Amino acid sequence: MSDGQQQAVDDSESTSPKLVELAKRRGYFFRSSGSYGGVGGFYTFGPQGASLKGNVEDAWRDRFAVAEGNMEIDAPTIMHEPVFEASGHLEGFDDMLIECPECETSGRADHLVEDNTEYEDAESLPIPEVEDVIAEYELACPECGAGLADVAVENFNLMFATNIGPGDAQPGYLRPETAQGIFVEFPRLKEYARNQLPFGVTQIGRAYRNEISPRRSIIRTREFTQAELEYFIDPEVDEPPLERVEDVAVTLYPASEQNADDGSVVETTIGEAVADDVIADPWVAYFLGVAKPWYASVGVDMDRFRFRQHLAGERAHYAADCWDAESEIDGNWIEIAGFANRGDYDLSKHADHSGDRFTVFKQYDEPKTVERATVDPDMSYLGPEFGGAAQDVVEELEALAARDRAAFEDDTVEIELDGESHELPVEKTGFSVDEETIAGEHVTPHVIEPSFGVDRLVYTVLHHAYREDEVDGEARTYLALEPEVAPTFVGVFPLQSDDELVAQATDIVDDLRAAGLSVTYDDSGNIGRRYRRQDEVGTPFCVTVDYETVEADDETTVTVRERDTTEQKRLPVSDLPETLAALRSGELAFDDV
Amino acid sequence: MSDGQQQAVDDSESTSPKLVELAKRRGYFFRSSGSYGGVGGFYTFGPQGASLKGNVEDAWRDRFAVAEGNMEIDAPTIMHEPVFEASGHLEGFDDMLIECPECETSGRADHLVEDNTEYEDAESLPIPEVEDVIAEYELACPECGAGLADVAVENFNLMFATNIGPGDAQPGYLRPETAQGIFVEFPRLKEYARNQLPFGVTQIGRAYRNEISPRRSIIRTREFTQAELEYFIDPEVDEPPLERVEDVAVTLYPASEQNADDGSVVETTIGEAVADDVIADPWVAYFLGVAKPWYASVGVDMDRFRFRQHLAGERAHYAADCWDAESEIDGNWIEIAGFANRGDYDLSKHADHSGDRFTVFKQYDEPKTVERATVDPDMSYLGPEFGGAAQDVVEELEALAARDRAAFEDDTVEIELDGESHELPVEKTGFSVDEETIAGEHVTPHVIEPSFGVDRLVYTVLHHAYREDEVDGEARTYLALEPEVAPTFVGVFPLQSDDELVAQATDIVDDLRAAGLSVTYDDSGNIGRRYRRQDEVGTPFCVTVDYETVEADDETTVTVRERDTTEQKRLPVSDLPETLAALRSGELAFDDV
Repeated sequence: MSDGQQQAVDDSESTSPKLVELAKRRGYFFRSSGSYGGVGGFYTFGPQGASLKGNVEDAWRDRFAVAEGNMEIDAPTIMHEPVFEASGHLEGFDDMLIECPECETSGRADHLVEDNTEYEDAESLPIPEVEDVIAEYELACPECGAGLADVAVENFNLMFATNIGPGDAQPGYLRPETAQGIFVEFPRLKEYARNQLPFGVTQIGRAYRNEISPRRSIIRTREFTQAELEYFIDPEVDEPPLERVEDVAVTLYPASEQNADDGSVVETTIGEAVADDVIADPWVAYFLGVAKPWYASVGVDMDRFRFRQHLAGERAHYAADCWDAESEIDGNWIEIAGFANRGDYDLSKHADHSGDRFTVFKQYDEPKTVERATVDPDMSYLGPEFGGAAQDVVEELEALAARDRAAFEDDTVEIELDGESHELPVEKTGFSVDEETIAGEHVTPHVIEPSFGVDRLVYTVLHHAYREDEVDGEARTYLALEPEVAPTFVGVFPLQSDDELVAQATDIVDDLRAAGLSVTYDDSGNIGRRYRRQDEVGTPFCVTVDYETVEADDETTVTVRERDTTEQKRLPVSDLPETLAALRSGELAFDDV
Repeated sequence: MSDGQQQAVDDSESTSPKLVELAKRRGYFFRSSGSYGGVGGFYTFGPQGASLKGNVEDAWRDRFAVAEGNMEIDAPTIMHEPVFEASGHLEGFDDMLIECPECETSGRADHLVEDNTEYEDAESLPIPEVEDVIAEYELACPECGAGLADVAVENFNLMFATNIGPGDAQPGYLRPETAQGIFVEFPRLKEYARNQLPFGVTQIGRAYRNEISPRRSIIRTREFTQAELEYFIDPEVDEPPLERVEDVAVTLYPASEQNADDGSVVETTIGEAVADDVIADPWVAYFLGVAKPWYASVGVDMDRFRFRQHLAGERAHYAADCWDAESEIDGNWIEIAGFANRGDYDLSKHADHSGDRFTVFKQYDEPKTVERATVDPDMSYLGPEFGGAAQDVVEELEALAARDRAAFEDDTVEIELDGESHELPVEKTGFSVDEETIAGEHVTPHVIEPSFGVDRLVYTVLHHAYREDEVDGEARTYLALEPEVAPTFVGVFPLQSDDELVAQATDIVDDLRAAGLSVTYDDSGNIGRRYRRQDEVGTPFCVTVDYETVEADDETTVTVRERDTTEQKRLPVSDLPETLAALRSGELAFDDV
C-alpha cells in the first residue's frame, strides 16, 4: 500500500519537459479534458500511447500469466464497503492532509515537512509529531505564504467513495489496487485451480487513489493501470523454481545500504543474493529474477534500473520483506513495481470478516490419527442447574475441552460464565478423548505479490528511449523504442503522391500487415518530414517506394531505413515481409541485412 | 443514452439458468464478492471469461480500429463535472425511481407500470402520468405488497458520483459511456488526424450506470465494458464506402413494422435497404454492413440476430435515426449495439460549454472572395455621447454590421441598448464593406457512432454456443464457440500420468504454443472427464498422447478429437502444428483431415 519514497524534482535540467511535450504532440499522453482546464491526476493515452500501453500489457500477460501458467481474471473496479473493511483500506489507507486556512489549498503535510525541513520520511511519523514539526519550523502555505503552525493535520482516506444504487445505504469504493478483486474471489478461484497449491491469478486493470496532490505527469495520477499477480503458496512446502533465474544479474539496494552513511548498490545475481541472505524471501527473489529480464525486453535501460528493499518503517503492515523495482528518471528513482510476501494477511482478514472459508484442503500423503477431546453434557442436569444459561455452559465446555483437556482430569471441572466461576462434576459433561483419522488439513495460503504500475512503466520506457542527435546538420529527436512495444513497427511511404507509387506502397502495406506486422502508411508532406514524424513516434523502420521501385526492369526494390542509425539499404520487395519479421524478432540485425 | 426496450423474462423454460451455472462452475463469470453476499450488478469474469472477453475485444479492435484505419485511445473513467454538464448527462441521464415507504425497496417506476399494466413504453411518459397510472391501477410494492398509489416518483441520475481531491469542491462522475472521453479531446485528436475529415477514434473500456434494479446476470450490470467508435465526418461532402458492404444480407425490423399490427422483419441487403430508404442514413447503413459479418465471425447465431430501428419516442434527443443490433436470448431480444448519427450535438455542446474550438478547418479548393461589413466607430464622438456605455455601443454596432448591413444604408443607424433605442449618424460608425479572400471555413463534424456492449455480446456468444447432446448414452453439455474467440483452442492430455506420456505431451504443448495456438494441458482425472471439461469450456480440439504414441516404431501419432462431433482421428505428431493452425483459420475442415 506504500508508494515508496518520492523525491522532490527539479525539472529544469531534465528531459522530462521535452518528453511531455512530445508525448502530447505525437499522441502518447496528455492531461485529460484540457478544453475544460483539465483536472489534476487524470491523463488520456492518445493513439500512440494506447498502443504502447496495450503492447506493454500484452508483454506482461505473456510473461506473468501465460508463460508462468497463471490464470487471468477481470473483476469490477467498484467494490462494496465490507471488502475494504476487511482489507484494512477503510481504516488505514490515508495520507496526511493539511488545508491552508487562507487560500484553502490542500496539500500533503508530510510532503510539506519533507520539502522544507531535514526530515526525509515524514510519512512514517504520527500526526501530532508532524504538527509539532510544522509549528517548530513555522512552515507556511506554498501557495499563499500563510502560516500553517496551528493548522490541524487530518487523515484523508485515498479511496474514491460513491454510493451503489439509490440513497446512501450501500457505500462503494473504487478499488485502490486490483489485488482485492482477486482475494475476495479466492474460494471460487481455488476451485478453478482444482484445489492445488501453488497457483497464481493475474489481473490487469484500473485502480484509483484520490491523491491530495497528484504530481509529475503520469507518474502519480489518481487513476492508473496495474498489472498484478497474486501467487498463492503453501508456506510449509512450496518452493520457487529458483534454478530458472539464479544466474540473472541484478542491481540491489538493500535497506542496510540505504541506512549506511556511504551506502551503495550491490551488484550480484539472484542465486547469490538468496545464498547471502540479501533477499530473505526466495519467492520474492524468484519474481525479481523473472521481472528483471522482462523489464529489459520492453525497453527499460538496465543502467537506470535497480531493486530497492523497503526500509522497516516503510513496509506495509502485512509484509515481512518487500522490494521495489525502481527506474531512474532525470536522476530521481521512481517505484515501478513492488514485490511483497503478503503472508496470510489478506486471506485471513477476508475469512474473519466474511465467515467464508479462504483455505485449501491439503490432503496428507497418508491419513493421520489424532486424539480429539469432546464433551456430550447431560442436559437433564445442566437445565435445572443453569436455566437459560445452559447452552452457554455447553459452549464453554466444548471450548475448554478443545483448549485444555487437563481441566477434566479431576472429579470436577471449573468454567467461567459471565465473569463468575462455576464447578461441575466431570461425569455430567460427557467428556471423552477419542482417536480420529484425518485425511488432511485446511491451509491458509500465503500470497506472493508482484505488483506492476503500467503508467509509470510506460513513462519510463518513453523516457529511457528519448534521444536527441543531429542528422545532416539538423537536430533530430527520436524514441529508440523496442520493436516489441513500439506502436508501429514499420512506416511505408510513396516518395510522391503519384498513382503508381501509391499503388505499389499500398500493396506493400497489405503484404506486411498479412505478415502480422504493425504498419503505418503516410503520403503527406515531404519525405524528410515523414521520417522525422516516425522517428518521434519511435517507429523502428521505414520503407520508401520511389521511381526506381516502379521503373525496375527485373527486381523491384525499395529503400529500408533504420530509425536509430538513419542508415538506408535497398531491398527486394519480395523479401520485405520475411526480412522485417526477422528484424522484429531480433533474429537479424540491420547491419547483416 | 437509451438502453432500448427491455422485456420481462420468464427464465423457467430457458437455457439461461443452466448457462449461468456453467459459467460460474467453469470460470466464465459469476457475481462478485459472493463471500460478502455480493452486490447487485457487479460481475467478475473468471479465467475463461476474461480470455473470451479479451478475444472478443481483440476481434473488435482488428475490425473497427485497425482494418477501418481508425485511432484507438484510452481515457480515464472518472471525469469532472463540466464535461457532463455539457454532455447533458448531469441534467437528463435519469431513470424513474419509486421507493416503497414500508420496506424501503427501490425500484423503477416505469418497470412497475410495464410489468403490471398494458403500458409498454412507460419510460417515455412524463413523471406525473406515471404517478397517475400507479394510482389508477392501485399498484403495490412487488416486495412487501404495500400500496404505492400516493408515493412520489423521482428522477434518479444514473451516474456514479464521487469527489476528486479532498472536500467536495470538485465533483466527478464515472463515465456513463466511453464516448465522452473521445469527444472532449476532439481538439487534440483532430491534430493527430492532421485536420483531415473523415476520421474515426475508438475506445474499449469500462462504463458505469448506477441502475436502480440491475437485472439478468451480465446483461444489465452497473459496471460494464463498451467498445465504441466515434466517426467524424463532414456532413456536406463525406460519403461512406457503401460498395464494400452493399451485398451484406441483413434482417431489419424497421419502426414502421414495429408499429404495424402484424409487423414482421424485412430480409434485405444493405444496398437495397439504402436504395429503398429503409435505412435513412447511409453512414449508419455502412456500419450495420460492417457489423453483421463481424458478429457472425465471433459466434452470434445469425438466426437469432436482427437490426431494429428505434421508435420515434425511444430515440435519444441528438439522434436523427438510430438502429440497434439485437440478439435473441430465450425468446427475448436484447440490445447488443447501437448505431446512431449523433449529428453535431456533442461537439457543439462541448464547444459552447468550454469555449474551445471543436471544429476542423476545411480548406476550399480555391480561395473565395466574400464581402464583409465592419465598423470603426469614432470614439471622440461616442465617448461624450454615451459615457461608460460607449464600449457596449461599439459591440452593438459590430454585431449589427455582421447581421444586417442594410441598417447602415441611411444617414442614421438605430441601435438598441438596455431596451432603449438610440440613433447615431452612420458617418460616426466608420461603417464599410470590404472584400476579403478566405481560404476555407471551420466545420463542426457530425458523428456516426457504432457503440457495442461487450458483456452482453459475451453473454450472447455463450448462450448461442450452448449445446446439449448425448454421447455414448451419456448426457453432454458443450459450448460450440468459434475458434477465434474460444479461451483455449486445443487441450493436450497424456492418457495416463506416465512419465513417458507426460514428456511427449509436454513437448507437443511447447510445439503448439510456438505455433501461436492457445493450449491447455491437463493430466488429472480419467480421459473422459477431461474431454467433458474441455467440452464445457468450449475448446474446439483435444489431443491425446497414448501408449501407441510413445511405442511407435516409425511415425509417432496422436488422437485428435473434435469437440462438436466428438469424432477422433489419428494424426502424425509432426503435422500437428500445421494441421491445427489450418483448422483454426478455417482453411481446413476436420472432415478433410
